[in-house]
Amino acid sequence: MNRPEYIQERDGALWLTEVESGHLKLNWRLKNVLHVERSPFQEIAIVDTETFGRALVLDGVVQTTAGDEFIYNEMISHVPLALHPNPKQVLVIGGGDGGAVRECLKYPSVERVDLVEIDEQVTSACRTYLPELAGQLDDPRVRTRFEDGVQYIKGVENQYDVIIVDSSDPIGPATVLFEEPFYRSVKAALRPGGIMVCQSESPLFYLPVLQNTRRVLNELFPVTRTYWAPVPTYPGALWTFTLGCLFDPFEDSGWTRRIREESTRYVTADLAEGSFALPAFVRRALGVAE
Amino acid sequence: MNRPEYIQERDGALWLTEVESGHLKLNWRLKNVLHVERSPFQEIAIVDTETFGRALVLDGVVQTTAGDEFIYNEMISHVPLALHPNPKQVLVIGGGDGGAVRECLKYPSVERVDLVEIDEQVTSACRTYLPELAGQLDDPRVRTRFEDGVQYIKGVENQYDVIIVDSSDPIGPATVLFEEPFYRSVKAALRPGGIMVCQSESPLFYLPVLQNTRRVLNELFPVTRTYWAPVPTYPGALWTFTLGCLFDPFEDSGWTRRIREESTRYVTADLAEGSFALPAFVRRALGVAE
Repeated sequence: MNRPEYIQERDGALWLTEVESGHLKLNWRLKNVLHVERSPFQEIAIVDTETFGRALVLDGVVQTTAGDEFIYNEMISHVPLALHPNPKQVLVIGGGDGGAVRECLKYPSVERVDLVEIDEQVTSACRTYLPELAGQLDDPRVRTRFEDGVQYIKGVENQYDVIIVDSSDPIGPATVLFEEPFYRSVKAALRPGGIMVCQSESPLFYLPVLQNTRRVLNELFPVTRTYWAPVPTYPGALWTFTLGCLFDPFEDSGWTRRIREESTRYVTADLAEGSFALPAFVRRALGVAE
Repeated sequence: MNRPEYIQERDGALWLTEVESGHLKLNWRLKNVLHVERSPFQEIAIVDTETFGRALVLDGVVQTTAGDEFIYNEMISHVPLALHPNPKQVLVIGGGDGGAVRECLKYPSVERVDLVEIDEQVTSACRTYLPELAGQLDDPRVRTRFEDGVQYIKGVENQYDVIIVDSSDPIGPATVLFEEPFYRSVKAALRPGGIMVCQSESPLFYLPVLQNTRRVLNELFPVTRTYWAPVPTYPGALWTFTLGCLFDPFEDSGWTRRIREESTRYVTADLAEGSFALPAFVRRALGVAE
């Protein structure tokens, strides 16, 4: 196993250098490098960090860590699932680590979760080294497909109650997951009364991405809303998620009671409610009163 | 001006290496180093970062940046000032950059803000290089004293409506700002109906500090509450603040309407309300139902 160039030994310890941008780098001290392989799509590594335990690293960028993944995965999953009055069929696009799927399975109405991940080797590595994330992929309600989510969604109509777009950043292959044709396909794949959610980046670092995502969803869906959570291991920390809804789920002001907070480490009913209160600068940038 | 050892030139650019812990380091690319000096207390630097603009750096640790300071400074100031029905006399301990003072002055009932900062050279450097933070220190309502906040507060009784403890981390000189005798003095310095707030660290990295702070304040004050905000430039990102109140300000459920959101970039009435919804793991660690 060749050590990637972004992992180097210094002062008797292994350090992973993560390039957040040309202007910011994060250095993680490692206990160990557990796995390195190159897939047709990217270089995959699983490392054990001192700070947040085991982490999935793609092309040198930390995607998720055992220590803080619960915040992101709970927020991208529980909010749309609690907003939908009776979610049965769920689709997760991306998210090959299995964390969002794990959260979806906590909702007893859910009969099936389809996971569409482009890179089978990511999921395979997470099954072996991050079972706390990927361990639920063997649940009989889960069907995992390894293909391009953009292609998959084009062939699906009127099938899902909730669609979760758990993408990486809008650079390289994930760029199309932030564009209008993709969201049009997502809308067509929803059943009546369906809800979709996507991660819409940090408004401190990528405000135009959030603005553009919201604009595209506004054109397609009768109801759109943005909510947020703190994600310690992503640059910018303040992270947003944007919903596109085929009906107005907020008319039922008691929706937060459906959050299964007995099973969570981060989200509660009150916190789900509060996550829709946007920072003043985000409100202004989006031109909304939320 | 000697360049500190934590700032080095690499690949034709200046980089500041911030040691977050023995396990995590952050590299900030700099446009420029504006100022370096050694005070009796610490090494003070003002740098211009590519990511968040100008930053105050003490002993190599980034304390505040022009790009994200508004989140922390608004949250530590507006929440207690809006909770108090009529704050007139305000004390800020620490916070020599002037950011919290700037926010306090936005409340028209405030007649005086005393700033007690131990290191005069910090404030002087911020006046010169970070006027967006320290520029309000010339307001006639502000009185700045350069002395040890712990000593100052011992000599004060029944004087302030709101006391803001804007401390650095509980290592080195700031340790005493997290201990019971200090908070006992703070309580004595409050007028009847007074409110104090302190930053109580990240529950992801320093959960025992939050638990201890809350325990000490619970023993001293009839009403304590913890709220939180995302602070991108602090490790752990999810940051907490803990209140000690001599009465129950939450009985007035309309308190958030007093947040002066027309003057803010982060906090709004809704966001102030939402900031009291604690993550599930923090609720459990504190043994509270908030």
